[in-house]
Amino acid sequence: MSKNIKVGVLGARGKVGAEVCAAVEEASGLELVARVDAGDDVAGLVDAGAEVVVDFTHPDVVMDNLRFCVEHGIHAVVGTTGFDDERLETLRGWLADAPGVGVLVAPNFSIGAILMMRFAAAAAPFYESVEIVELHHPDKADAPSGTARRTAQLVAAARRDAGLGPVPDATSTALDGARGADVDGIRVHGLRIRGLVAHQEVVLGGVGETLTIRHDSLARSSFSPGVLAGVRAVADHPGLTVGLEHFLDLD
Amino acid sequence: MSKNIKVGVLGARGKVGAEVCAAVEEASGLELVARVDAGDDVAGLVDAGAEVVVDFTHPDVVMDNLRFCVEHGIHAVVGTTGFDDERLETLRGWLADAPGVGVLVAPNFSIGAILMMRFAAAAAPFYESVEIVELHHPDKADAPSGTARRTAQLVAAARRDAGLGPVPDATSTALDGARGADVDGIRVHGLRIRGLVAHQEVVLGGVGETLTIRHDSLARSSFSPGVLAGVRAVADHPGLTVGLEHFLDLD
Amino acid sequence: MSKNIKVGVLGARGKVGAEVCAAVEEASGLELVARVDAGDDVAGLVDAGAEVVVDFTHPDVVMDNLRFCVEHGIHAVVGTTGFDDERLETLRGWLADAPGVGVLVAPNFSIGAILMMRFAAAAAPFYESVEIVELHHPDKADAPSGTARRTAQLVAAARRDAGLGPVPDATSTALDGARGADVDGIRVHGLRIRGLVAHQEVVLGGVGETLTIRHDSLARSSFSPGVLAGVRAVADHPGLTVGLEHFLDLD
Amino acid sequence: MSKNIKVGVLGARGKVGAEVCAAVEEASGLELVARVDAGDDVAGLVDAGAEVVVDFTHPDVVMDNLRFCVEHGIHAVVGTTGFDDERLETLRGWLADAPGVGVLVAPNFSIGAILMMRFAAAAAPFYESVEIVELHHPDKADAPSGTARRTAQLVAAARRDAGLGPVPDATSTALDGARGADVDGIRVHGLRIRGLVAHQEVVLGGVGETLTIRHDSLARSSFSPGVLAGVRAVADHPGLTVGLEHFLDLD
Repeated sequence: MSKNIKVGVLGARGKVGAEVCAAVEEASGLELVARVDAGDDVAGLVDAGAEVVVDFTHPDVVMDNLRFCVEHGIHAVVGTTGFDDERLETLRGWLADAPGVGVLVAPNFSIGAILMMRFAAAAAPFYESVEIVELHHPDKADAPSGTARRTAQLVAAARRDAGLGPVPDATSTALDGARGADVDGIRVHGLRIRGLVAHQEVVLGGVGETLTIRHDSLARSSFSPGVLAGVRAVADHPGLTVGLEHFLDLD
Repeated sequence: MSKNIKVGVLGARGKVGAEVCAAVEEASGLELVARVDAGDDVAGLVDAGAEVVVDFTHPDVVMDNLRFCVEHGIHAVVGTTGFDDERLETLRGWLADAPGVGVLVAPNFSIGAILMMRFAAAAAPFYESVEIVELHHPDKADAPSGTARRTAQLVAAARRDAGLGPVPDATSTALDGARGADVDGIRVHGLRIRGLVAHQEVVLGGVGETLTIRHDSLARSSFSPGVLAGVRAVADHPGLTVGLEHFLDLD
Repeated sequence: MSKNIKVGVLGARGKVGAEVCAAVEEASGLELVARVDAGDDVAGLVDAGAEVVVDFTHPDVVMDNLRFCVEHGIHAVVGTTGFDDERLETLRGWLADAPGVGVLVAPNFSIGAILMMRFAAAAAPFYESVEIVELHHPDKADAPSGTARRTAQLVAAARRDAGLGPVPDATSTALDGARGADVDGIRVHGLRIRGLVAHQEVVLGGVGETLTIRHDSLARSSFSPGVLAGVRAVADHPGLTVGLEHFLDLD
Repeated sequence: MSKNIKVGVLGARGKVGAEVCAAVEEASGLELVARVDAGDDVAGLVDAGAEVVVDFTHPDVVMDNLRFCVEHGIHAVVGTTGFDDERLETLRGWLADAPGVGVLVAPNFSIGAILMMRFAAAAAPFYESVEIVELHHPDKADAPSGTARRTAQLVAAARRDAGLGPVPDATSTALDGARGADVDGIRVHGLRIRGLVAHQEVVLGGVGETLTIRHDSLARSSFSPGVLAGVRAVADHPGLTVGLEHFLDLD
C-alpha cells in the first residue's frame, strides 16, 4: 500500500483554506500535517514533514511562501491570485534551481469549468454561431466573469485556427448592451440573480441544431476536487504548470 | 350541432397567411371561404359569406381592410403590425358605429409567449432579482425582441405595484454591454444563434432559489393555435380588443 | 408604526428550526421571543408573549403542541409532516372553539415550488403534451418527489377540467422505465445527481412550441421566505388553512 | 483552384435524400451529378461521373448499391440503417479488393450529437453521477432513443475504464419507472412532447457542481452538415469507416 501524501495548508484559517483543510482530512491517501496562517512561522511546514503545500493566501505574501517551499523541496498547489508574467518568470527561475519540485498555479480549480472551456473550444470549429451566458449572485463586482472572458478567448482562438470568419449577426437597431459585451468577437452576457452561485452556458449553433455546454457551481465546495487532484499530481509534474487542465487526462 | 364559422384570410398568399389558411382548413368548426391577397377585391369576402376575417397584410393596407370589414359586419383578427394609438382610436370610432362587431389586434399570437409574460409578471413580486434572456436566429434586425421588451415592462410594473425597489447589482467594473440592455430597470440580454428560431427565458431569483420560465418557438406554425383561438372568440367580444391574452381564460 | 409580531419557534434546535430562528431574527417586523425544543416546557411560549408559533418538530408531538397553542390563542405555522385527514379534522374541531386563531399547515414552504405548480396547472389546458422532470441529490429515498407527484395531480386535474384527453404517445417498444412513472396519466421522471439540491421542470408542448417552468432550490434556506410570509399572514386567516398558496396573492 | 467533387445521391426522391440533394447543390466545392431512386438504373452514376455517392435508401437494397459503387471505384457515404456485423464484414471483404475506395457507414450524421457523446464520455471519469434525458416528438416509436442508448453505453464504458463504481442512488421507495431505464447501469429518461424535434441532455454531477451537455435538433436539416463533411472526407479514408466521428478532428 502506498503511503499518504503529507499536506500543509497556507491560509488555513481563511474561508477557502478552511474548506481545503476539511477536504484534505476527508480524502483518502492524503494527510493534513500543518495548518499555517498569517502570524504563523512557515518553518512549521518543514517540521511537520509537508510534501505538498496548498496556498490560498494573498498576493502580498504568496511569493515569499513559494520561495520557501521551493527552497525546501516542497511541491505547491496555488490558488492565490495576482500572478502576472513577471511573477511566473521569477517562479520559473527558482524552480530551475530545484529540479524535482513542482508548482501548479491555477486561476480556476473547478474541474467542471475547465471541461466546459475545453469542450467549447473543441466544438467551436463546427458551429457558425457561439455566445456565452454567465450567471452569478448579485454581489459580484465584475462583469463578465473571468471564466467567461477566458472561455470567449479560447473559443475565438479555435474559430480563427479553423478559418472561420465572424459570427453572423444582422442586428441593425439595438438598445445599448442588448447584444452583450464583445470579447475577441464573441458576445458575452452576464446575469446577476439572487439565489445563484456561479453558472455559465456556452451556446453553439449551426443549421437546424444547437449544442449547449452548461456548468453550474452550486456550492463553494465545488473547487475542492480540483485542489485534491492538483495535490495528488503535482509531484509528478516538476517545474511550473499554469492551469489545472494540464493535470487532467483529457486527450 | 353548431354550424361552422366561415373564415376569410387577407394576405392569403403571404408566408404567414398561407399557414393561417392551412390551419383554418384543418381546424374543426371553421371553414375557409375566401383567400384574398394584393390585387383581389375585398368585396369577395362578402360574396363568400365570411363571418370572421384574419388579416396578416401590411401597415399600408390594413386600415382600409378593417374599415371594409367593420362596415360589412365582419369580425376581424389582426396580426398586421403598425398599430399606434391614433390607429387604435380610429378603429374604436368605426366600431362605435357597428355595435355587434369585434376586432382583435394582437402583437403576438403565440399562446406560450402570452403565458410566459403573464407568469413572469405574476411571479415578479415574490423575487428580489429578475432578468430576461431572449435567443433568436441571427437574421433578426432588432435587439432585444419586442416580446422581451414587453415582458420587461410588465415585470417592472408588477415590481412597482408590489413596492419592490431596484434589483440588486453590485457590478462596479464591467465591459460595455456585459450586463445587457436596461428596459425600465430590468436587464435584457439578446443572443443571436444560427439554428434557433425564437426563444425567451425569464429568470427570477430569491434567497436560495430561482424560478425560470422559458418559451421555445421551434417553428413558425406556433402562432396558429393563437390565431384559431382568436377566430373562435372574436364574435363574443364586440368592440376593440388589444392583445390575445384577453380572450384566454387565465384565472 | 406597527409593532413587531412576537414569534416562538418549536423545534428550535433542529436543522430547519435553527434556520427559522435565524430568519425570524433578521426579518423586519418580527421578533423572536422563544426557542423551544424537546425537553422544554411549551408554557414558556405564553410567558414570552408569543403571538405566532412556527412548528418544525415531529409527527409524535405536533398535535400536542398545536392543542396548546390553540387553547392559548397563539396562531401557528406548521411545517411538520404527518397530517392526514383525521388530524386535520381534529385541528378543525379545536379551532371551532377558538374563533380568532389561525393555523397554517403547509407541506411545502417554497414559494417557487408553489408558483411552479400554480403556473403548470394554469398552462396545462393550452398544451397537448406535458411531462415532469424532477432532479435531486442521490441521498433522497423516494422517487418521484412529493412535489412532482403533487404537480402531476394538479396538471392532470386541470387537463380533465378543460376536457383534454390523454397525452399523445406513440411509443411501441421501450425499455422498462424509459417513459418514467405514470401519475394520473402524467409522466414523471426522477434524476438523482450528486451536487444537486432540489429542482423540478415542467415541460408543456403544442404544435411548434414548448413552455418550460423550472424551479431550482439551491440551498435549504429557500423555504425561509415562505415561512416568514406564513408568519406575517396567519393572524389574518382564522381557522385552518392547508397550503401556503392560499396566503399568496396570485390573481 | 481545386475542382468540385462530383456527387450522386441514391434515394434522391426520399424525404432525407431530397434534403441531401438540396444541400449538395448549395455546398461550395460539391456538384450534384446524379439523382437515383427506386426504378432508376444505378449505372447512371458511372455515366454521370459520380466520385462520391450518398445512400439514404433501404436495408433491402443498400448492399447491392454498395457492391456496385465499390466495384466501380465510387466512394460512398451511407446513412441507410440495418448494418449488422455480418454486413460490415461483407463490406470489408469487397473493399479489400478495391484498395483506393472509401465507405463511411454512420448511424448518426448530426455533428452535435457526435460531439455530445464525445464530451459526455470525456467528462464521465470526473463525475460521481451521470444521467441522460432525451426529449422527442410524441410520434416516435421507441424509447429511449438510439442516440441516448449509445451515449449511455459510451459513458458506462468510460466510467469502467476510469475505475468508477456504480452511480450513487439511495432510492428505496419508487413508483415504477420513476428512475428511468437502466442502460449499462446508466439511467436514461425519455420525454415525448408535441412541438419538440430531437433533443438530449447529459447531466453529470459531483460535489457542489454539475456539468450539462445538451444537443437540440430543431429541424431535420441538421444532419446535412454531417453528410457534407462525410462527402468531403471519404476519399481520404480508404476502406470501411463506421461512425462520422472518425472524420472529425476532435483532438
